[in-house]
Amino acid sequence: MKSALLREYHQPLELVERLEPEPRGSRDVVVRVGGAGVCATDLHAIDGEMEPAGLKPPVVLGHENAGWVHAVGDGVTAAKVGDPVLVHPAYSCGLCLSCRRGNDVFCERHEFTGLTRDGGFADYVLVDERSLLPLPADVEPVEVAPHADAGITAYHAVKRLAHRLTPGTTAAIIGVGGVGHIALQLVRVLGASSVVAIDTDERRRALARELGADEVLGEQPDVADAVREWTNGVGADVVLDFVGTDETHAAALGMLARRGLYSIVGFGGLVAHPSVAFVSGETAITGNLVGNWIDLWELLQLHGRGDVTLRTETHPLDDVNDVLDALRRGDITGRAVLIP
Amino acid sequence: MKSALLREYHQPLELVERLEPEPRGSRDVVVRVGGAGVCATDLHAIDGEMEPAGLKPPVVLGHENAGWVHAVGDGVTAAKVGDPVLVHPAYSCGLCLSCRRGNDVFCERHEFTGLTRDGGFADYVLVDERSLLPLPADVEPVEVAPHADAGITAYHAVKRLAHRLTPGTTAAIIGVGGVGHIALQLVRVLGASSVVAIDTDERRRALARELGADEVLGEQPDVADAVREWTNGVGADVVLDFVGTDETHAAALGMLARRGLYSIVGFGGLVAHPSVAFVSGETAITGNLVGNWIDLWELLQLHGRGDVTLRTETHPLDDVNDVLDALRRGDITGRAVLIP
Amino acid sequence: MKSALLREYHQPLELVERLEPEPRGSRDVVVRVGGAGVCATDLHAIDGEMEPAGLKPPVVLGHENAGWVHAVGDGVTAAKVGDPVLVHPAYSCGLCLSCRRGNDVFCERHEFTGLTRDGGFADYVLVDERSLLPLPADVEPVEVAPHADAGITAYHAVKRLAHRLTPGTTAAIIGVGGVGHIALQLVRVLGASSVVAIDTDERRRALARELGADEVLGEQPDVADAVREWTNGVGADVVLDFVGTDETHAAALGMLARRGLYSIVGFGGLVAHPSVAFVSGETAITGNLVGNWIDLWELLQLHGRGDVTLRTETHPLDDVNDVLDALRRGDITGRAVLIP
Amino acid sequence: MKSALLREYHQPLELVERLEPEPRGSRDVVVRVGGAGVCATDLHAIDGEMEPAGLKPPVVLGHENAGWVHAVGDGVTAAKVGDPVLVHPAYSCGLCLSCRRGNDVFCERHEFTGLTRDGGFADYVLVDERSLLPLPADVEPVEVAPHADAGITAYHAVKRLAHRLTPGTTAAIIGVGGVGHIALQLVRVLGASSVVAIDTDERRRALARELGADEVLGEQPDVADAVREWTNGVGADVVLDFVGTDETHAAALGMLARRGLYSIVGFGGLVAHPSVAFVSGETAITGNLVGNWIDLWELLQLHGRGDVTLRTETHPLDDVNDVLDALRRGDITGRAVLIP
Repeated sequence: MKSALLREYHQPLELVERLEPEPRGSRDVVVRVGGAGVCATDLHAIDGEMEPAGLKPPVVLGHENAGWVHAVGDGVTAAKVGDPVLVHPAYSCGLCLSCRRGNDVFCERHEFTGLTRDGGFADYVLVDERSLLPLPADVEPVEVAPHADAGITAYHAVKRLAHRLTPGTTAAIIGVGGVGHIALQLVRVLGASSVVAIDTDERRRALARELGADEVLGEQPDVADAVREWTNGVGADVVLDFVGTDETHAAALGMLARRGLYSIVGFGGLVAHPSVAFVSGETAITGNLVGNWIDLWELLQLHGRGDVTLRTETHPLDDVNDVLDALRRGDITGRAVLIP
Repeated sequence: MKSALLREYHQPLELVERLEPEPRGSRDVVVRVGGAGVCATDLHAIDGEMEPAGLKPPVVLGHENAGWVHAVGDGVTAAKVGDPVLVHPAYSCGLCLSCRRGNDVFCERHEFTGLTRDGGFADYVLVDERSLLPLPADVEPVEVAPHADAGITAYHAVKRLAHRLTPGTTAAIIGVGGVGHIALQLVRVLGASSVVAIDTDERRRALARELGADEVLGEQPDVADAVREWTNGVGADVVLDFVGTDETHAAALGMLARRGLYSIVGFGGLVAHPSVAFVSGETAITGNLVGNWIDLWELLQLHGRGDVTLRTETHPLDDVNDVLDALRRGDITGRAVLIP
Repeated sequence: MKSALLREYHQPLELVERLEPEPRGSRDVVVRVGGAGVCATDLHAIDGEMEPAGLKPPVVLGHENAGWVHAVGDGVTAAKVGDPVLVHPAYSCGLCLSCRRGNDVFCERHEFTGLTRDGGFADYVLVDERSLLPLPADVEPVEVAPHADAGITAYHAVKRLAHRLTPGTTAAIIGVGGVGHIALQLVRVLGASSVVAIDTDERRRALARELGADEVLGEQPDVADAVREWTNGVGADVVLDFVGTDETHAAALGMLARRGLYSIVGFGGLVAHPSVAFVSGETAITGNLVGNWIDLWELLQLHGRGDVTLRTETHPLDDVNDVLDALRRGDITGRAVLIP
Repeated sequence: MKSALLREYHQPLELVERLEPEPRGSRDVVVRVGGAGVCATDLHAIDGEMEPAGLKPPVVLGHENAGWVHAVGDGVTAAKVGDPVLVHPAYSCGLCLSCRRGNDVFCERHEFTGLTRDGGFADYVLVDERSLLPLPADVEPVEVAPHADAGITAYHAVKRLAHRLTPGTTAAIIGVGGVGHIALQLVRVLGASSVVAIDTDERRRALARELGADEVLGEQPDVADAVREWTNGVGADVVLDFVGTDETHAAALGMLARRGLYSIVGFGGLVAHPSVAFVSGETAITGNLVGNWIDLWELLQLHGRGDVTLRTETHPLDDVNDVLDALRRGDITGRAVLIP
């Protein structure tokens, strides 16, 4: 089968032929890939930054996968051959304390399809049945593939703070890209606050307006000031950051209301804040990883009701390196999905 | 009446004679002071660091006050002359959004007795009836005065994270001083985690042992390492910091478990943490101010049941400057209370 | 001034001339009534059923009041003469434990305007400043009067269970009248579940469809069965009952999913359920009173964003008895408001 | 092997010889029984009342099992031969929505060892590896067997309402038997309320006193009145009922404070309450099933710290029918455990 392999850091992926995977354990499932989303994490992987997460080349990338069950081990009960499925990217054991609590991303035996195991930039991908989420008959796998990482990352972060989004509060979203454009919608669906979207790119600001942001900022030299002004000096009660540079960290803390929460999804910079400021404003900060299987299930319910729409574009798997380049240049608005 | 006045920064308080206060508004109450606790914030005030909080000399210090109602305005219903009372240090209006939500420390018209208004290092102190908390007949005001600031600061911080203190988790407490020694007890009363107490002073470590800490650390060169070792590599699920220097900020983040919360009460240093570390461990940080009236009420219920004991020492008001010096040297174990 | 007085039970209200009220206490406020909503509770009052709540005739009814500040006591700071205001119906002291926790409806010194004190079926009504909620300049008092009771009753009940309305769940609403038609909208704004509306009256079913219910039932002989069928046998995760008869109590428990919550707002019947059924399904039931001031404030924010719309009709105060008759016959769809 | 078989309802269990079970599926585990607790549910099973839960004779009873792993299927990773283990009584798939959320008792493929599958009144019992909870080396299985049902039933119920047990509240416990005597301790460990224990049997009242109840009632003709009196008219904020008859249902609702929660564990009677009473007091009721695996894990942590002690007595398996008779007569104080 065709696969896009990360063989060496800082090099384009290699399109190679490999053997089709087969179920080895009794709960193994081979999925024929219908679509595989392309993510900024793939760029981090190529840049050699995902070793702390366990990546060791050579590995086939692709962690936002959807398709159809192609073959199953003898103990599989979660789906049968031919079923359309979405694939949660994490391997989880179902036995450890984290799994029992639903935090399967923190599984003691954690693995990640497309980073620590071969992923879905290929015709087929091998996963455990615990990763499967059966799709309704009327949903095309390729349509929902980005929910398997971008979607649940947004969902997980928004759900964790949704209890703060009460009427009269303001949520600010920094970065309206592949993850942020989903989060913007989720803040409206799961919460009742006003929403300010912030992006430096006019195409993404236009997308934010279209998706119903109450205010869209990003042209201003001092965006923290602009948020304070728009909120009559109060600031944003919640700031969700999908960019994560020194600049956004400082801006986010600068626009935060008293008793506010700064929730970090995108990363890269240093957060530096005097403890007196934490105390005097009862400021809170939290980081967020990708969502769990249950987040994916809940997000799919919203998708089914039309409450969340993905902005996607599709490309053949052969164009994987062109798509990665476009993503690196900031020329993807929404999410790109590869079709083998 | 006698008062200990902060007239100039960096100078000893002046013991001066002043006119006894009288009720001016219909909800004003004059309290005869039975005891007034001495707090590290008094040192900050003397050092000129409380101007951002609204302090302007000259002002009578003393924000941990308890005593008996001496005179009341014509609209007061919360207590009558002669009643023993504890005095919550914040003025709150009862009408704004924060007050309605019980967050009276964030009142729009916030004032603070003993910092922005004359306090209880005096024979009498003037407050609003919303600040009063009637005491049971069998409680001596002087016994509980430190609950009015040290107590509710500890209570507020612990209560906000008590839902995380489930069986099998570990809470670390940095600093077993005036506030920390109460927090240590509250972690045991309000939670079900193991407790590690950390202090650099052997007298305070002895106090921690006496108050039931499961482990007491602080002699080690690398206390974060010691906590990791004691928790079999997991780290502390919650770290409460009552010191708040660059060193404790770094140590706290170094000993934190994945999905852990670092809760800051003492302040002074800079918290610096890369956003990738926030994200990969879903790390959370929060700051805490003093507690609300309702915190004081709940804490008094625990006091009444004997679930929390204060370690106090009493001194005559005339010795106020000696007591402040001892506190600055670190020679107060527990809390000092002045008696006029 | 003109007032509609309940002098004797089971008799029409008497339209009488009375002296205009004046501020007596320093926090008293006289409001010139712009509109006063008519509520099923007024019928209960006329029928002699509100004595347990403290009503003693003669009393002027009217507890959903909005208007303009007409006169104020010397200590009032929450509003000034001429300000448009909405009036929360409960008197609350701001000093007791319940008030401190924001539950001002459970105030130790509870009173209720229009039931235990003279209400707003009159030119003027006398209230405490804690009851006032200032309106934005662009909101006409008469437009929002029903939020002062119908609105916050709906808001309070929905807010208390909103954390259960996760994607993939189903909420059923029994009774789409004055309170239910607001609750239906709030379930959509504050939650992410599907919504089934149930009413025996086709006019109210049409209103439910218009307000966005996913399914509308009520013609079926067995509505519990119909809900089970629509949810593929699962049942409704939450049932909100705005009717409250023996029949709706039985139907609600019959349509409830395992681990579901039956939330009661309308009342009148007997709830009878074997304890084995509570246990085997971990069934929960809760009752709900009118909302607090903070509920009214939050609801007003949603009103300002256009997230909730009231279906109202206005009538002159002189027609009060005709309006009460129409309400009793079930001929009011939405809410009727009297204008003095 | 020896087994105590329920062959016919209303008859003593038959002590028979059966084949030792063997692992059939790859995740099967055979446990050599060290101790098996005897529970009121065993009486219900013998009385033919557990058919709705899926029981069909003949079946070996015994659902509170602990012992040592004797044989494992080829896919088992949770434990190895020789390990001491506690056995959670429910079978759960780990794949359905309920399992993913940690509610494994509500698993779509639910089974229950000792009711719907052969249980632990035998030398060996066959379970799935998801049911295992490894024990620390210093814990004897027989010591903790009752935690596998009585313990987690108490833990689950108390944990669900622990957020209500704030300082100043009162919890009432009806029935200080096998489950209730654990719940009494857990209310103290997980909460900060006062505790009133209620039992009609003096032996159990003595046990309640020993376990630290603040007040012990049950001799009074009207226990609801007695609770009201002890709480100065307020009532109990939480009532936990481990008996569940018409009488306890009425008494529980009669002693409940406003905004209180009546939490039902024992069952048998009819709960009948007018909806006006639910509404005027914002009364809540909830039922509770047995706890989940995670409850068992957390409870074991408390056991390890000495925060919860079991009152048990042991008997040889051969005496099973005598022990069941004693339980039926009310002559077991605490919990009886059978040893094969």
